[in-house]
Parts: sequence; C-alpha cells; structure tokens
Amino acid sequence: MRTSIATVCLSGTLDQKLVAAHEAGFDGVEIFEPDLVASPDSPETIRTRAEELGLSLDLYQPFRDFEGVGPDLLERNLRRAAAKFTLMNRLGIETMLLCSNVATARSGDEQLAAAQLRELGDLAERFGVRVAYEALAWGRFVDSYEQAARIVRLTDHPRVGVCLDSFHILSKGHNPEAIETIPADKIFFVQLADAPLLSMDVLSWSRHHRLFPGEGGFELGAFMGHLVRTGYDGPISLEIFNDTFRQSDPRATAVEARRSLRWLEHETALWLGASPGARAARMSASALPAVEPPAEVNYLELRADAVDDMRALLSQLGFHAHGRHRTKAVELWSQGAARIIVGRPESDRPQPTVAGIGLSVVSPETAMRRATELFAPEILRRESAGDEPLVGVRAPDGSEVFFGAEGETEPNWVHEFGAPAGEDTPVIQRVDHVNLAQPWQHFDAGVLFFHSVLDLRAQPSLEVAAPVGLVRSQVLRSADGVIRIALNLVPSGADPDAILPQHIAFAASDVLGLARTARERGFRPLDIPANYYDDIAARYDIDPALLSELKELNVMYDRDESGEFLHFYTPPIGTVFLEVVERRDGYDGYGALNAPVRLAAQYQQRRVATEGVSA
Amino acid sequence: MRTSIATVCLSGTLDQKLVAAHEAGFDGVEIFEPDLVASPDSPETIRTRAEELGLSLDLYQPFRDFEGVGPDLLERNLRRAAAKFTLMNRLGIETMLLCSNVATARSGDEQLAAAQLRELGDLAERFGVRVAYEALAWGRFVDSYEQAARIVRLTDHPRVGVCLDSFHILSKGHNPEAIETIPADKIFFVQLADAPLLSMDVLSWSRHHRLFPGEGGFELGAFMGHLVRTGYDGPISLEIFNDTFRQSDPRATAVEARRSLRWLEHETALWLGASPGARAARMSASALPAVEPPAEVNYLELRADAVDDMRALLSQLGFHAHGRHRTKAVELWSQGAARIIVGRPESDRPQPTVAGIGLSVVSPETAMRRATELFAPEILRRESAGDEPLVGVRAPDGSEVFFGAEGETEPNWVHEFGAPAGEDTPVIQRVDHVNLAQPWQHFDAGVLFFHSVLDLRAQPSLEVAAPVGLVRSQVLRSADGVIRIALNLVPSGADPDAILPQHIAFAASDVLGLARTARERGFRPLDIPANYYDDIAARYDIDPALLSELKELNVMYDRDESGEFLHFYTPPIGTVFLEVVERRDGYDGYGALNAPVRLAAQYQQRRVATEGVSA
Repeated sequence: MRTSIATVCLSGTLDQKLVAAHEAGFDGVEIFEPDLVASPDSPETIRTRAEELGLSLDLYQPFRDFEGVGPDLLERNLRRAAAKFTLMNRLGIETMLLCSNVATARSGDEQLAAAQLRELGDLAERFGVRVAYEALAWGRFVDSYEQAARIVRLTDHPRVGVCLDSFHILSKGHNPEAIETIPADKIFFVQLADAPLLSMDVLSWSRHHRLFPGEGGFELGAFMGHLVRTGYDGPISLEIFNDTFRQSDPRATAVEARRSLRWLEHETALWLGASPGARAARMSASALPAVEPPAEVNYLELRADAVDDMRALLSQLGFHAHGRHRTKAVELWSQGAARIIVGRPESDRPQPTVAGIGLSVVSPETAMRRATELFAPEILRRESAGDEPLVGVRAPDGSEVFFGAEGETEPNWVHEFGAPAGEDTPVIQRVDHVNLAQPWQHFDAGVLFFHSVLDLRAQPSLEVAAPVGLVRSQVLRSADGVIRIALNLVPSGADPDAILPQHIAFAASDVLGLARTARERGFRPLDIPANYYDDIAARYDIDPALLSELKELNVMYDRDESGEFLHFYTPPIGTVFLEVVERRDGYDGYGALNAPVRLAAQYQQRRVATEGVSA
Repeated sequence: MRTSIATVCLSGTLDQKLVAAHEAGFDGVEIFEPDLVASPDSPETIRTRAEELGLSLDLYQPFRDFEGVGPDLLERNLRRAAAKFTLMNRLGIETMLLCSNVATARSGDEQLAAAQLRELGDLAERFGVRVAYEALAWGRFVDSYEQAARIVRLTDHPRVGVCLDSFHILSKGHNPEAIETIPADKIFFVQLADAPLLSMDVLSWSRHHRLFPGEGGFELGAFMGHLVRTGYDGPISLEIFNDTFRQSDPRATAVEARRSLRWLEHETALWLGASPGARAARMSASALPAVEPPAEVNYLELRADAVDDMRALLSQLGFHAHGRHRTKAVELWSQGAARIIVGRPESDRPQPTVAGIGLSVVSPETAMRRATELFAPEILRRESAGDEPLVGVRAPDGSEVFFGAEGETEPNWVHEFGAPAGEDTPVIQRVDHVNLAQPWQHFDAGVLFFHSVLDLRAQPSLEVAAPVGLVRSQVLRSADGVIRIALNLVPSGADPDAILPQHIAFAASDVLGLARTARERGFRPLDIPANYYDDIAARYDIDPALLSELKELNVMYDRDESGEFLHFYTPPIGTVFLEVVERRDGYDGYGALNAPVRLAAQYQQRRVATEGVSA
C-alpha cells in the first residue's frame, strides 16, 4: 500500500508537516492549498524539500466550484484552473482534486458537467496534469460517488477521473459496493477518513470530527476491500479534518496516522480473506500477526510518592507483601491473581500513576511483532542477569504495556520478589478493570492503540458529570471480557487532581465481607452520601437489610438485565484510588450511574482536606 | 419577574451552587436531582441552608418515564413518585418536573396518559405537592408543548399542570404563539434556555450546547411575550446544560445568568411594546435605559511592557505623541480620531493587553445605568482633581469599557495629556475594529455582555485556521457599523502567544500610501508570502500594477459584493499587533480569507525569532 497524508491533518508550518510525514514513514503527501498559500517557501523550494525527504507530492487540493456553471463563469473557472495547473507544474504535482460544485452550479445536468469537465481535461492535458473529481457529501447537485463516476464516464477524457473519499460515501450511508464497477484506471485518487457515528449536519461533521481509520465507526475494511477488487494501486491517503489534531504535535499525529493505515491494511486483508483468488492471497500478506486474547492482567504498576499510604491500603484490603524486587526499587503486592507493583515515580520522564500493565499472552514474541508492526515504540528495559525478560511498548498516554508468557499458576518474574504469597483463600481474585487518564491530544490515539495492538473493542463512549466538568470515558475490552481498560478524558479546563481519572478496580467474591474485614483493619472507604441510598431505594426494589448494609459500609449498587453490581472505593492516594467490585450473575457494566456520585464525593473530600471545608 | 436557576447550570457542590445563586441575586433555584443525590447534606439541611440564603426551592427535577405504561410499571412508577414526594416534603419543594416518557411508554394514547397523570395527581395531593408535565423534544410519543397542554387539560386535576421549556419548543421550530391558549393557572413552571442554531440531533444539542438568553439564536423576547399575555406570574427559571459552564466558576456563571434574564425582561417589554393594554404597560417598566449608538471609539488603552517599541511603531504609522498624562503613568498617541493610550501593565491584577475601550455616547450616565442594571461591575477609578470624570464597567474578559460624552471635536480628557495634535491631514482616521481575546470560560458571556450592555449585534461566528488550531471569532457591531468588536477564542490546547488574539485595526484613507510612507520611516510590515499573491491573482482579476504594489508593500487584499479591502499588519509587540485597513466602496467584511495566512506568517515570524528557524 502506498501511503499518503494530506497536510491539513497535521499542525504547524508546511515544512513541519513534511518533516512529520517523512519521519512517520509516509510515502507521500497531499498539498492542502491553504498550507501552500501560507508558506514562505516557493513552490520550487517545496518540491526540492519533498524530494530530499523522499516524499512524493501526490495531490494538489482542493479546487472548487467548477462545473455546472454558465459560459461566463466557465471561462473564469478555466482561467483559475490554468493558474493552479501552472503552480502544480512548479510543484511537480500531477493530480488535482476537484470537489463537486457547492456554490455556483446552476444546473445538475450531467451532460453539461461532463462537457465542462472535458474542457478542463483538455486544459489539463496541455499542462501534463490530471483532475480527480470528487462528490462532496454536501455538493449542490452532485453528492454521491456513483454520480461522480457517471459524469467521469460521460466526460470520457484520459485526464479526468474520480477521487473516492470514504467520508463522503459512508457519512451518507451510501453502499461502497459499487466502487467495484469503476474501472481502476478511472480511480485517480483515494482519500480515507473514519468518523464517530454522529447525527449532525454532514458539513460540520466532516470539518471538525473526522478521525483516523480505526478510531471511529465506519466499516473501512469493507470499503478498502471493494477498492482492492477494482485493481486500484495508487496512493491510499488520509484526509482528516479534526480540531484536536490541529492542536497536537504533528510528529505524534503522523505516527498515529501511519498506525491507522497499517491496521486498515490488516482489516482489509481480513475482509478479503473470505474471498478466494490471487488478489486476496496477495493482501493476506498484509494481515498483522494475530494476538491471542490475553489470558489475564498479570500485573499493574503504580508509581506514587505516597508509597507508605499505598502499602497500608493494600494491606487493609488483604494483599500480601512479597517484598522488594531483588534489583529494582519496586515491591510486589498480590492477592489471588491481582498483582500490584508499587514504586516511587521514576524521575527521567513524566509518567502516569498507573504506569504499566502486564498482560499474559500465548506468545509474547508475536504480540511484540504485532505491536511494532503497528509502530508502537518498544521499551528498552535494563534487565539484570537472571531476571525474566519482559518485552513491551509505550501507549500514547505514556503508560507501558508489557507482554509475559502465560504460566501455570503465576508468572515466573514473581520469584524475583521476596516471599511467595500466603495460603489464605483470597477474596480479591484479579484485576477487574483499569482506568487510564488520557491527555486531551491523545484520546483517540489511545483508542486506536489499544484497539489495534491488543485487538480490544471500543464500547460506546460515555460522558460522566463531575462537579468540575464532563469526563469522557470509553471502555475497551477483549472479546471474553478478561481485559477491560477504560480511557478517561478530563475536560480541558478542569484541574485533573479534582477528577482523579486513574484507578484500579479489583474483582472480589464478597465485597460486603471484604468491606467489613477491611474496616476491622482500619480501612475507611470513600464516604457515600445518605441521599444516594434514598435514591437507589426509590429506583430499585432492594431488600431493606441489604440496603442498610450497603449504607453502613459505603458500598454502591447497580443492576442490569442479568445481575447486580456491588462496589466500594478507597480514598485517593495522590492522584489514584482503588475500587473493589463484585459482579453477581453476569452483571456486565461499571456502575456508570454511580460515577457522578463518586466523583462528587471525591471532590467533597478533597475540599475538606485542602480547603478545610467542614465535612 | 421572579428569577430562578437550575443547579445543573452551575459547577461545584450543591452548597457552592446555592451560594453562587444567592450572591448573584436569584430569588430561587431548581434542585437538579443528581446534585441532591451527590450532596453530603441531608434534605433538611439543604432546606435550612436555602432559607438562610433567601432562596426559594422552586422545583425538584427531573422525574422521568412515568406515563403511557402498562399497569405493572404504573404501580412501580407511583411507588417511585411517592419516594420523591416524600423527599420533596423534606426539602419543602412544592413542584416536581415530570418529563414526557422517552423510554418505557408503550402507547401514545392521550386518554391513557391523562388517566395515569390523574392517579399521579391524586398521589401528589396526599403529599401537598404538584406535578409540572413537560414535553421533551425527543419524547417517545409526547414531544410538543401543545400535546402536553392537551393531556393536562384531559387530566383535569388541580395538582397537574404543564412546564414550558423554551428549548424543547424552539429547537423543534414549534410556534410559541399557542402558549397564549394555556390558562395561566395550568402553567406550573417555565424554564428558559437559548441555544446556537445548530443542525444536529436535538438530544446532544440540548445536553451540551444550551446557552443563557441573549447568547444564542432563539427569539426569546417573543416567547416571553406570549407567556406574559397568559398572565403567568410564577418563576422564570434558567435550565442550561452547557459543557463550558460545568467547568467555570459558578459565581461568574450565576452573574452571567442574572444578566441574561434582565436583558430578556427588556426584550420582552420591547416585544410587548407594540401591543397596547395594561399588561404591556406594566412590562414596559422592565425595559432597560436605551443606549444611543456610540458615536465613536474615543480611545483604546494598550498595556504592554515594550512601551518603547510601541512608541516607535505608532510614530512610524504617523501618530502624534501628546505626551504623558498629568497624573497617571500613561501617554496618549493620536491620529485623526484614533487615540491610543499606552502604558505598562498595572501590577494589581491580570489585565488584557487591549485593556480598555472608551466609547463616546450621548449620555454616559444613561449608559452606566443600563450597564449596572445588567449587573456589569462598575470600575472605581481614582481621579485626580480636575480630571474629566470617566465612568465605566468591566467586561467578562477583564477589559474595561468607559463611557465619555460626545464632544464637538475631541474628548475633553485629551487636554489632560501634553501637546495638542498636529495640523497634518491624518491618513488614519479612526479605529475600525478591535479584537479582544476571550478566556474559554467567558466567550459566550462576552457575547452577552457586549450585546446587552452596548446593544451590539452578533454576526455569524467564524472559525479561522491557525497553525496551532482553530480560532473561534465573532464580531459584534453597532447597527451603523461604527463600533466593531471581534471576540476571539484561542483553542484550549494552544499557546495563546502563538496566536495573538488581540489587535487593533485602524481605518485609513490610503493604505498603500501609508504603507509606503511608514516604510520610509523605518517600518517593516508583517511579511506576507509570495504564494499568497499568486493565489489572489488566480482568485480575482486584479490589475497587475496593483498586484505588484500590494506584494511590494505586504498589503493584503479582499473583495465583497460592494467593494475592496486593503490591509496590512505590523509585527507583534508582545502579545498585540496593529492593523491598518482601507474599505473601498462600502466593503463590509474583515478579510476573513486572509486571516489564516496572517496567522501562519505570525507563527513563522515567531519561530524565526524564538527558535532561530531560518526565515
């Protein structure tokens, strides 16, 4: 797959954009006209610069409002086009994107449009360039790719073909199957974009909310499959208008973009896998190494200054202290299959408090190969002699994902810490889910990372009201539900410490019993207001004895079609806190209705602690 | 007008919300259920607290999914309602909001709904409370206020009436005129919200984008006019779901909210003004003092550390130095009617660089009375003996607006500075427009402030692409176009210094001549890339001689239906820069197409200056 990216996807100057595309390994770029117009570099300088960077300049875009006009305007439009063709010659760009007319078309007559495109084709021929005609989803008369393809067929000019853009096709719900009816030599260019499935006017949706493939809700594997079947072998280019990407480091965005295309190649191969034939066989080489679903979260790593407080808390919850690692300044606590590595923050770089996730997989090597093929940066870790080798990659939020081999009972590396676990029957059995704070620039990149690298599936995104703003939260989970990672986005204006977007939830067999035992050990849970218990009493028929026990122990409650959910929270330690959950009868949620109450309780507790407000 | 506000409009804990509503002078509040559930205070404590603060608790909300259900669910719904009525008794709240069923209704039969509401009315009677039934815009069967009113009429129960919410009515384009057909004693509650005119699904629009009256596009004066004609005299309450307000200081939001209602009273009086009768006469007492359109911007005040650079720049542009104020550490520069007061930043508080705007009005006293009736904070200024008294208020962005009396030729205070202006014919004639940076929390508040206090009208909002993100920009202008203020919002993640959202534009009679003269005086304009001139040459038929002069002088060009626009920019001084514009033949825009090129040129210049990138 020849990969390309439109300069509009990246922030900064045109030169910064070219460098970012080059560093991420793109083959080429589309030059977005406003980037060129605003550049202090001449077209010749830009051409040379791209050559130096090994980037082809694949497309000049956009040219607007050409066809379907009266004769006077046609003359002016041809003059405009000649000026741009001259510029393209200076840049060395062969293909120009022509968008279907949104403003000046007076007629939807396809013969008229074709006749005018033929004149444009003749002009293009004189300059040695060609025109890729694209139906905008909001075109005045032409708003579907089938119409555009029909007009191109009528035009019947070697310099005029179509440009296919997945957004304009899928946003309108058009079936991409008819792409297969377009001759490959008439597909001059292909632009790809994903998007969340929003219900809003398509122009705003397109201009602000596009995403890289794998980050939204479009079925791009099928789109690409139809395209591959035509025999098209030109560039596959990303054109993503997104308000966040415009503000983010262009180098990080470009890597995310490359990852999305690599993932899409894989999806396309899977989609084509069902169909026999040479083409499908060729594409299957593009599939990524398969990741067996992780069997468990084999550890989580917490980095916090308040190590003593964390020790006390884990101890109250019944965790066993294994002691310090034989060479590293971290210690292990475990209960059942829940293993927490605790240490102080490392000083060499900013680090989330939930700093690492260890996953047990069938083959760590395969998992790493998949991750690095997806451009995930490998973590180079200094192992001491005799330490179990751990391999891992860094997620966009800065947290680390390590892959370990599935063991019989517990991972081999556990023996690098002191004493083995005790013999008690554990109440806490394993990690249920983990919540990671995502920086606002990298939320969608986080979704793509976990989706593509670990094959986790994005659940519908939620918005949870905290006293200082709405928190966006999206769960990604493995098909079997063993791995559940919630990505949380703190609103841009809010103090992250007032929201605590990172936490670890443990699955327990008996939350009420554990809450009681922990209390005997001195544990004080997060205080839940009495009004909450009045509210759930009104909402559900809860056994009064259970209700009063929940209230006494500050345990929260939820229910879905299949079962019940009981859970309690610890007070925060620094910027992180812990949760213990019990899923009864296959309850499959996360107590989303309770989240605002928990957030308010944490906010209140923080005010008491930091501002001396009376409790 | 009895004023009320839903606690969901404000951030923080329930107690913080009550305090904010009280401090802003509201008569009452609606208790939004999640705020109560999350509060550590008991219902009795909340009741007492509200009494202490002089706030009535006007509404408990929302109760959902009651009517149109089968008999089993009806039983459960009545039990749920009884629990909430009990709670309302503890809070001392008389009215509960019931939203039309969105989830569990099985039938749209209005007789069935009425029969079930009658049962709810009987139950309410036992608790001494009442139910205000509201049609949600996305209700399953009931989604219009006329339907809700019809069902209430069928219910025919003294404890059941309607709640009218302007959002649910106007978002669907329903005509509010039929409000007049509802008996006043059946209107139990009224909620008001404005909103931008977006085209998106109504649920998301409602949950995230509501605005205070005067900040959006709904015609709320007419809505209120119809309401007043019914004889309704209950609370007028604001229910605004807005992602930004959720993150902002609740005290500032509450003041903004009060301002919006005061403005709305005025709009209502104006709307009713045309209709004779006692009611209209009573309402006309609610009209605000009228502001005569300001005759001119009589000065702008700039606060910057680089005073010497600013002096040099003003001098190059032909401004005359009057000298220092006789008592204050500021100096005056003028040309024609453009007057710039320059000083270093004052240390006692954060201050925008464009720190103040002086406006000439017929009666400064009337303008002040209007502003303070709209809760604009008055600025207390230490005047020295003999200084012209200036009165003014502070805008939400921290800038100051001063009102001065219109003079024959120039304001009286000019004589408090040194030398009078020279005799040359000025090329710069006056201030054309001024751009003010708005903090993200206060953008909509800024629109409301300038709209309500100065009667400026909001133009359609624009988004301008800068290399580091999209800048939102909204012009507010007086009817005659003399006062033009653009409010700019820097994207939340961007460094404001990379965008420079504040600047002053002067109107000149001959921009090309001035650019040339200034150059002779050593002026170097912001460098505009050559590619820009190729682009405008392709876009417009420009006389080649003019084009080459524009290019030589770094003057930008735009055109609208009536005329042409020529303008150039100075380099930035600190966080501000200046612009000189020439409007030919009634051109009425701001060169919006040129703004991205200007932003990129400024970004490039800054990289050269701060990072040593080669120019």
